[in-house]
Amino acid sequence: MTQDPFLSRLELARSGARTLANAPTVRKNAALESVALAIESHSPELVEANARDLENGRVNGIGDGLLDRLRLDADRLRGLAQAVREIIVLPDPVGEIVRGSTLANGIRINQVRVPFGVVGAIYEARPNVTVDIAALALKSGNGAVLRGGSAAEQSNRALVALIQRAVSEAGLSGDAIQTIDDFGRDGAGRLMRARGYVDVLIPRGSAGLISTVVQESTVPVIETGSGIVHVFVDATADETMAVDIVRNSKTHRPSVCNAAETLLVHRDAAARMLPAISRALLERDVVLQGDDRSRTLVREIGEAGDDLWATEHHALEMGVRIVDSLDDAIAHIDRYSTRHTESIVTQDYANAERFLAEVDSAVVMVNASTRFTDGGEFGFGAEVGISTQKLHARGPMGLPELTSTKWLVRGSGQVR
Amino acid sequence: MTQDPFLSRLELARSGARTLANAPTVRKNAALESVALAIESHSPELVEANARDLENGRVNGIGDGLLDRLRLDADRLRGLAQAVREIIVLPDPVGEIVRGSTLANGIRINQVRVPFGVVGAIYEARPNVTVDIAALALKSGNGAVLRGGSAAEQSNRALVALIQRAVSEAGLSGDAIQTIDDFGRDGAGRLMRARGYVDVLIPRGSAGLISTVVQESTVPVIETGSGIVHVFVDATADETMAVDIVRNSKTHRPSVCNAAETLLVHRDAAARMLPAISRALLERDVVLQGDDRSRTLVREIGEAGDDLWATEHHALEMGVRIVDSLDDAIAHIDRYSTRHTESIVTQDYANAERFLAEVDSAVVMVNASTRFTDGGEFGFGAEVGISTQKLHARGPMGLPELTSTKWLVRGSGQVR
Repeated sequence: MTQDPFLSRLELARSGARTLANAPTVRKNAALESVALAIESHSPELVEANARDLENGRVNGIGDGLLDRLRLDADRLRGLAQAVREIIVLPDPVGEIVRGSTLANGIRINQVRVPFGVVGAIYEARPNVTVDIAALALKSGNGAVLRGGSAAEQSNRALVALIQRAVSEAGLSGDAIQTIDDFGRDGAGRLMRARGYVDVLIPRGSAGLISTVVQESTVPVIETGSGIVHVFVDATADETMAVDIVRNSKTHRPSVCNAAETLLVHRDAAARMLPAISRALLERDVVLQGDDRSRTLVREIGEAGDDLWATEHHALEMGVRIVDSLDDAIAHIDRYSTRHTESIVTQDYANAERFLAEVDSAVVMVNASTRFTDGGEFGFGAEVGISTQKLHARGPMGLPELTSTKWLVRGSGQVR
Repeated sequence: MTQDPFLSRLELARSGARTLANAPTVRKNAALESVALAIESHSPELVEANARDLENGRVNGIGDGLLDRLRLDADRLRGLAQAVREIIVLPDPVGEIVRGSTLANGIRINQVRVPFGVVGAIYEARPNVTVDIAALALKSGNGAVLRGGSAAEQSNRALVALIQRAVSEAGLSGDAIQTIDDFGRDGAGRLMRARGYVDVLIPRGSAGLISTVVQESTVPVIETGSGIVHVFVDATADETMAVDIVRNSKTHRPSVCNAAETLLVHRDAAARMLPAISRALLERDVVLQGDDRSRTLVREIGEAGDDLWATEHHALEMGVRIVDSLDDAIAHIDRYSTRHTESIVTQDYANAERFLAEVDSAVVMVNASTRFTDGGEFGFGAEVGISTQKLHARGPMGLPELTSTKWLVRGSGQVR
């Protein structure tokens, strides 16, 4: 055992995680129910700890939007307990036999799902992420080392202490869940370099946070979230469908990563459909910026700024561009997309199939709103995040994406 | 397009890779056959280029072992062409539908295998790796950027030029395969930081090389190869089986990563079996070092050095330790293993199952030689490497491990 207090914390998470790794599903579920009950019964203390964060936030001049995301009240805590119970009913990925065969020499090999070990998470502001990640880690048999934003330090400390107690009361090791918020900024940096102590690191938050983790981490990272998402309205698109899909993709929840940022319209559809699509967006207060061709068709479209196509607005703003062909649409996407989600609206079979085959994004759609890129919508039941990298997991991540595999080899004395 | 000659090279690989990504299997196979034929028909030029590397190696005082691994002759080139043909007959992983379902709203979702895009490889000395990785990349629809050791620069340059020509002659883009050996040491460093240009980086070579890549790369890495591999002879082990498995695990091919380095023996089996096991190893010229208890039983066992248990010998040397229990064996493995392969020799069902469940390595075996951790033995047919990390791939990697996935979503106008 190390003397270093930071590494000791990580070792504690790992030794706690060992008790989870082979725990039967019923015991992990009992621990989760214990966590849900504890959140409900200790609601007043949690609200009080959160109040200290809110007060500090006001003193430090944090904006209203951020303060709202930081806030825990009795209602939100009930929601958090409910989210934990939704994880209880999900199938346990651990122990699933992924592949297996009997070799010619009689050796039987089985590839089975196992927990990673310890999952690290670096995230900002929202204390619900603390419960979210801890519960997903518990269900998948992993320990978790959590580094939340300093703005939520009191809330996160109270939540982690409560989770540790609840897990221990259910007979598993509460040590598996640890916070390193008390190590301050230095803690995040050390976590990124804790290869061998932490098996995978998941950043959740702003593009800046994610990029820092990707650049600096020696622990394997799963990159999530950033979404410059495109909808392409093809020449043959049905007008009603195009209006519905563009409006829904942009305005249903503009602050999230699967909201569309850029509308591409085929030149042969532009005169026919861009006015109606623009009207539908303007009615929902979307600010439009576009290229010259789109601006001659719709005068409410403003001039495109230099970095428009590379900007994730997270807001009711949208870029509009008219393209000459499917190839031009794909080329635009290839240049500017963060490879999260793109959708084509078309009635043309060949174009639909080409778009699906040639666009290199985690999720590629035909005639559907980009808002469907979501673990819940895909039927995974839990939100680990949406991976925009190609290694290990791509697109919406469910519990199986929080596991690794190992090969079990059963022989009867075979040698080579 | 960038003006930087290094990044231009990477962009060339990516644009070449695009022609492979959706190429039908028959065309990729034709390109591979074209490569195999070219290796055979240009054998004299390749031997000549290799002769220049051998000459430089002699001038620079490279050892005989390394010179032998560097050598290409007509026989070895025929073997290389044969290895390419073995990849032709493997199933194409691209396009495989991994999962799929129809959502309640009628949207159909399919998760399909797609190429990564561009695979980077950093490796040492052996020019056969150049052909190996290029052929595996071609079959899986990926481009490849290759950084071989400077010792093989002439051989690698000749091989890559030949591969590029052969792929182009078969009607695909030879640009997909690139070498960056001409950028010298700087090239390896830049490749590690080429996130966005290269999708995954696979180091193959010494532990030092792999550790450098893991520490410095911002491109996602698949860590391969390092193997401190254990065989544990349990109290109930069958003596003949124990002798066979330990001997085979250690001596069948001591230089490779799945060769055993450490023998753990249960104290209740030690007096009965350690003398016979040691004799079998000594007969094969294995140098044994061990703890005090093993040395009192077998006087040929030398004193264990300080870092014995953490050393991968790659040679006919083995550490021997007597442990008091299965728990002690697992604890030793947990402390010293590189989590590659471990095997238990036992007749006890419960101990076998506990070892399989609790040892956290890529491959965990009962009553089998550790030498079976191998893509060929597992029936994968091709040697991409053996992953010792938990993200994306673990254990022997086949062609599917050189792919990512994407989700195809087919709707009929659905919105949320």
